[in-house]
Amino acid sequence: MSKHLTKRDEDYSKWYNELVVKADLAENSAVRGCMVIKPYGFAIWEKMQAELDRMFKETGHQNAYFPLFVPKSLFEAEEKNAEGFAKECAVVTHYRLQNDPDNEGKLRVDPEAKLEEELVVRPTSEAIIWNTYKGWIQSYRDLPLLINQWANVVRWEMRTRLFLRTAEFLWQEGHTAHATKAEAISEAKQMQEVYATFAENFMAMPVVKGAKSESERFAGADDTLTIEALMQDGKALQAGTSHFLGQNFAKAFDVKYTSKEGKKEHVWATSWGVSTRLIGGLIMTHSDDAGLVLPPKLAPIQVVIVPIYKGEEQLNAISEKVDVIVKELRKKGVSVKFDDRDTFRPGAKFAEYELKGVPVRMAIGKRDLENGTVEVARRDTFEKQTIAIDEVVSFAANLLEEIQDNLFKRALNYRAEHTTEVTTFDEFKEVIENKGGFVSAHWDGTIETEDKIKELTKATIRCIPNDAIEEEGKCIFTGKPSSKKVLFAKAY
Amino acid sequence: MSKHLTKRDEDYSKWYNELVVKADLAENSAVRGCMVIKPYGFAIWEKMQAELDRMFKETGHQNAYFPLFVPKSLFEAEEKNAEGFAKECAVVTHYRLQNDPDNEGKLRVDPEAKLEEELVVRPTSEAIIWNTYKGWIQSYRDLPLLINQWANVVRWEMRTRLFLRTAEFLWQEGHTAHATKAEAISEAKQMQEVYATFAENFMAMPVVKGAKSESERFAGADDTLTIEALMQDGKALQAGTSHFLGQNFAKAFDVKYTSKEGKKEHVWATSWGVSTRLIGGLIMTHSDDAGLVLPPKLAPIQVVIVPIYKGEEQLNAISEKVDVIVKELRKKGVSVKFDDRDTFRPGAKFAEYELKGVPVRMAIGKRDLENGTVEVARRDTFEKQTIAIDEVVSFAANLLEEIQDNLFKRALNYRAEHTTEVTTFDEFKEVIENKGGFVSAHWDGTIETEDKIKELTKATIRCIPNDAIEEEGKCIFTGKPSSKKVLFAKAY
Repeated sequence: MSKHLTKRDEDYSKWYNELVVKADLAENSAVRGCMVIKPYGFAIWEKMQAELDRMFKETGHQNAYFPLFVPKSLFEAEEKNAEGFAKECAVVTHYRLQNDPDNEGKLRVDPEAKLEEELVVRPTSEAIIWNTYKGWIQSYRDLPLLINQWANVVRWEMRTRLFLRTAEFLWQEGHTAHATKAEAISEAKQMQEVYATFAENFMAMPVVKGAKSESERFAGADDTLTIEALMQDGKALQAGTSHFLGQNFAKAFDVKYTSKEGKKEHVWATSWGVSTRLIGGLIMTHSDDAGLVLPPKLAPIQVVIVPIYKGEEQLNAISEKVDVIVKELRKKGVSVKFDDRDTFRPGAKFAEYELKGVPVRMAIGKRDLENGTVEVARRDTFEKQTIAIDEVVSFAANLLEEIQDNLFKRALNYRAEHTTEVTTFDEFKEVIENKGGFVSAHWDGTIETEDKIKELTKATIRCIPNDAIEEEGKCIFTGKPSSKKVLFAKAY
Repeated sequence: MSKHLTKRDEDYSKWYNELVVKADLAENSAVRGCMVIKPYGFAIWEKMQAELDRMFKETGHQNAYFPLFVPKSLFEAEEKNAEGFAKECAVVTHYRLQNDPDNEGKLRVDPEAKLEEELVVRPTSEAIIWNTYKGWIQSYRDLPLLINQWANVVRWEMRTRLFLRTAEFLWQEGHTAHATKAEAISEAKQMQEVYATFAENFMAMPVVKGAKSESERFAGADDTLTIEALMQDGKALQAGTSHFLGQNFAKAFDVKYTSKEGKKEHVWATSWGVSTRLIGGLIMTHSDDAGLVLPPKLAPIQVVIVPIYKGEEQLNAISEKVDVIVKELRKKGVSVKFDDRDTFRPGAKFAEYELKGVPVRMAIGKRDLENGTVEVARRDTFEKQTIAIDEVVSFAANLLEEIQDNLFKRALNYRAEHTTEVTTFDEFKEVIENKGGFVSAHWDGTIETEDKIKELTKATIRCIPNDAIEEEGKCIFTGKPSSKKVLFAKAY
């Protein structure tokens, strides 16, 4: 396979698809819409998981595991949720295969092994979890219940793209139960903050925190909080959502608790999730025409060292120096790889690590040995420097922090340049059409206007930002009064 | 729910089921045969995962993720494997639900959303993975391929028991590809060693390493290596298996590599797995009539501290001392919980942590404050000691190690007492019937004899131990010559 990548400004979508495959992150599988996450891609997910899991536990959550299947009768219990997911769910109807009498060596579904009740492969787990919580919650002493699950879910999407939208994906889903409405709302907000902190501090991906408009809410939620990121092609990506579910699931599954005062009350709920979609966001926030660019905090390999040598003697002399560097870097918690394979030339290795987005590359050759130096190249800016070998470990450690910061600032600048305030619908169309990015505009708050704008421009309301200022304004589309600007964009 | 547990010698099976539920490890779900793993049970699984994952990575493996679904045509490609799992697989046939016209508010499978090809929910992933490996392996340079996956799998078992046998379970499955037969065999052996080390050093569960007889092999394997543990009721538990798959899957999926000499050859394969079943083994190896007994290395809480006080002033004085102990224990990497809830009395807390198997319990009361002491109780032997507060941290750290050792030794003694060599079939029946445990006996090596013994006694060949001595002997059943003793037992 050619290492050549389509350029972003030629065809952004093609660039993305090629990059995911060529950088060994993921590939399409034999199952329609399902991906194989390859080891390098999975290593990024593991780093994400580790950080998120730590943050969830620090905020008092525990992990548990609930069944993959949701019996149809539970699935349909919360009406809006069921309606929202019914059109895209995989359904298990049988529990056995048998030899196909018409087809030697082939199998077929055993018609006698039909399930009495169909099982839905979970597209999300509110139904099965709330049915379980019914047995766990009796008294105010059982609350709050703060649980998270790492799992696979299936949504039968018709148009899929690696990481961004796949029929099966990996995610975490938090499901919490609270005694009061205020506590549940504050939990939903807390998890939005956790997601925003993770996105900005680890993924180096700036996000806007806000609330979804009614029509963009999660099916079954009273309020959906979101973090929205902006990709390099000017399209927005919903990167994580945190839902205030009111008492909808508690009522559907009859989950009540006895309060301190001895009254029976329905509990209040939240759910919140991020998925392997984040890897798509990570790629589209930082990467360039040469390949992947990874923020050091999530890079499986942070530093790679490539020896440039002729003959074993030179390699040995280089290895001796490198061993010390590797040891010192590991002591500092840096993940480092010394690539001394003799089956590839240095140039091929350089290209490979560029494609794979390793943040810092070191090269040591004969002249470096003589001069006591190391060549250090950073992936984000392609800058190279020659550093004294004694200083290279602390230099690299600092450089990793600098790269992390630089990637965030670069993405923040891009977003600032691609966030436009408009006051008329002509301006709106012009920006959406030609410049892309977030467009901040007044909206009259109705679903009708939102729908029409979407129909005419393909732009949707990404969120009503948390920090939107209360001000008197006029809807760009209807001229009706509006009290806040909302954020529009075309989106993934 | 009553905290009272059925005693082991009254009804071991009932004791087990009650313990799993009462100790908050897991419970049955609304989905037939599927369990909910509760936070306390899942915390044990997370500890197991962390250790195993570390061991897999240390032996050069990387994690990846493959689809949940296996298209029927791939599922049936390796004939023996397909035959082995066809009878117990969940099958997805449709991808949409719709409103049921005959049933207001209910959903039904949309007859127009039938899949062209049925999808099997993976009971194991050889088929989907080897179909993927075909694209990954071209040359000897691509080998060995050393991959592991943490995943859920589904086997439609008719008789299920929490952790031991459930329709859905969590596991890891390693799938490796090698250039030579010898290398694949050595990989399978290596992973058997990894499993044995984990079982003995972390679970404190002694295991016999051996090979399965032909009829007990994994469907599609040329050889199945196993680790077999002995439960307290004298029944064996297969705790982990590592399969040498020969070229069976490489041939079924046409996976060839070009050797250094330029020849095209089929690759050699292994697969290996352990599952949440290990938690069942952990419980049945160590626990007692008072509840769970956990080896410290896998206990979610290693030390619990309970204050015994009247009034806030005493509690504050105790808390001050406890804070120092907690801090010092955490510094040593000990996970410790200070249970200062005022909604429960000390006696209730003692009972709870006994039931939940916390290895070390500390209690501090008024007299301890005066004397500068702490009462320390160990869960495995119920022994209590009064320790000077300045020494309690190092005492507890040592005690945790001692408990870990003691549990292993206790289990090893039990196994030694319950491993019997026999030379006649009468003896064999007598031991299997009345004493239980492992029975070591000569066997003529035929499937017929194995089947007959199973039919007559319910005992199966657990394994041909790796360390079985070559010796001349006679089959206990047929009197035919045998060169090695094998290990029989009734099994879970």
